[in-house]
Amino acid sequence: MSTTFLTTNEFLTHWQGHRNLTRRVIEAFPEKELFEFSVGGMRSFAELTKEFLAIAAPGLKEIINNVSVPFDEKKEELKTKTALLKAWDESTVLINDYFNRISSERLKENHNLFGQYEFPVFQSLLYFVDNEIHHRGQGYVYLRALGIEPPYFWER
Amino acid sequence: MSTTFLTTNEFLTHWQGHRNLTRRVIEAFPEKELFEFSVGGMRSFAELTKEFLAIAAPGLKEIINNVSVPFDEKKEELKTKTALLKAWDESTVLINDYFNRISSERLKENHNLFGQYEFPVFQSLLYFVDNEIHHRGQGYVYLRALGIEPPYFWER
Repeated sequence: MSTTFLTTNEFLTHWQGHRNLTRRVIEAFPEKELFEFSVGGMRSFAELTKEFLAIAAPGLKEIINNVSVPFDEKKEELKTKTALLKAWDESTVLINDYFNRISSERLKENHNLFGQYEFPVFQSLLYFVDNEIHHRGQGYVYLRALGIEPPYFWER
Repeated sequence: MSTTFLTTNEFLTHWQGHRNLTRRVIEAFPEKELFEFSVGGMRSFAELTKEFLAIAAPGLKEIINNVSVPFDEKKEELKTKTALLKAWDESTVLINDYFNRISSERLKENHNLFGQYEFPVFQSLLYFVDNEIHHRGQGYVYLRALGIEPPYFWER
């Protein structure tokens, strides 16, 4: 028999806890390496951060407005660590606001995210978190390769 | 108002989907590099795999038996890719069995996992998945650094 594993409040806390850790990973990079360093031809951690920002609040906004909007990583605007962290903190507030406007019925409905990814809303939201953990793990390798101690994974 | 975000069945499907992807990452490594390659002085992907195996089924077994058992990565036994994949598949079956024996009340109870980590059961289970995504992200960098195309992250 299936029962509740996670409530909406617990999910939001879990997500924002991960975002808090990602914020500390952004902070741990020196300015230059944040934008330029990578391993194996992969994207810099700044590029990955722009992806996280382009997914989270814009994705939620689509879901609550029931529209599909093309993906936009704002590559022209986010050119310094300070700009990324400011956008991160603005996103934190927006996520809390938008997430709490999603009804339990809406969570189970399909939505065509960014006009490309058609899934039930709760699955897309899980994907947002998984994608951030996945690429942040990549950022941990970059920091280690730079000789920088990353924040503890279990600290949120 | 808080409502159900994820049911127990949905969580199990989500977890096993991630484990299926991790299995394909193990398979993508050449035998030697699986055990020897790393970046920035970090652990090999075989070492990380042994950690995943030592957490998942043994952790669930503790939780359903309500005992704490020291962490054991079975480093003596798992010395080939074939042995790791066999242990992986055995773990897949055990996880389905054990997980379905956890009651909704038990999910909210505290458990001192491996005698070290005292958290509500559902939080420990979320951590199992997060930890695997995090370190698998590290494995993706290893594969890219080796010039090997990793499996698509969204394929489960």
